[in-house]
Amino acid sequence: MNWMQQIKWSDGLVPVIAQDAETGDVLMFAFMNQEALQQTVALGEAVYWSRSRQQLWHKGEQSGHVQKVIELRLDCDHDVILLKVKQQGDIACHTGRHSCFFQKLINDEWIIDQPVIKDPKEIYKK
Amino acid sequence: MNWMQQIKWSDGLVPVIAQDAETGDVLMFAFMNQEALQQTVALGEAVYWSRSRQQLWHKGEQSGHVQKVIELRLDCDHDVILLKVKQQGDIACHTGRHSCFFQKLINDEWIIDQPVIKDPKEIYKK
Repeated sequence: MNWMQQIKWSDGLVPVIAQDAETGDVLMFAFMNQEALQQTVALGEAVYWSRSRQQLWHKGEQSGHVQKVIELRLDCDHDVILLKVKQQGDIACHTGRHSCFFQKLINDEWIIDQPVIKDPKEIYKK
Repeated sequence: MNWMQQIKWSDGLVPVIAQDAETGDVLMFAFMNQEALQQTVALGEAVYWSRSRQQLWHKGEQSGHVQKVIELRLDCDHDVILLKVKQQGDIACHTGRHSCFFQKLINDEWIIDQPVIKDPKEIYKK
């Protein structure tokens, strides 16, 4: 079995945690199918499978916020991938923030504690 | 809507990334249902929902490797939780390793690059 076959795919997908290789910040959570993972390794840049759009999603193709692959890890159960990346533009979230996990539970409320680095209107304009 | 209702539950579950609050190491990936999350917050220790055993799973109840909750975060889509923890015993994985992500892709092979800190036979003996 090659390394791709050693992954336990669930409905053809594997969940992926993207982590900033330098700071350790968890940036986002997404999915890959086999083709996305193959392209990720071939390109050296994160390519996900967009479940909402049902298509390959080369992260940063529109925004420029590409994720350069530094390290690829697999968990003990062979069903989750940890992708350590160098995040271009320091922005992983479509809201223009560094990380997608910008809401922190404080006194029973989700409080936003990360600034918008760049207005999404500026990020995604054509 | 309270903070629990603001989470987008999928089949009653939400995926949870557990991260070492101090080192930033991603330790494991699991799921919680509403009761597990309520208990997590009430106890200040991670309680997951075991999909294989179909029951609440107070992490560390057998092994002693409890995860003290330091911070709870929610992502932009409200459907993934990031749990920053203090990992008791420095062992999160049932294999006796620090993290579940102990396999690294090197030249098309998954290579184990983390030591077993404690033999699982010692961890789970009764």
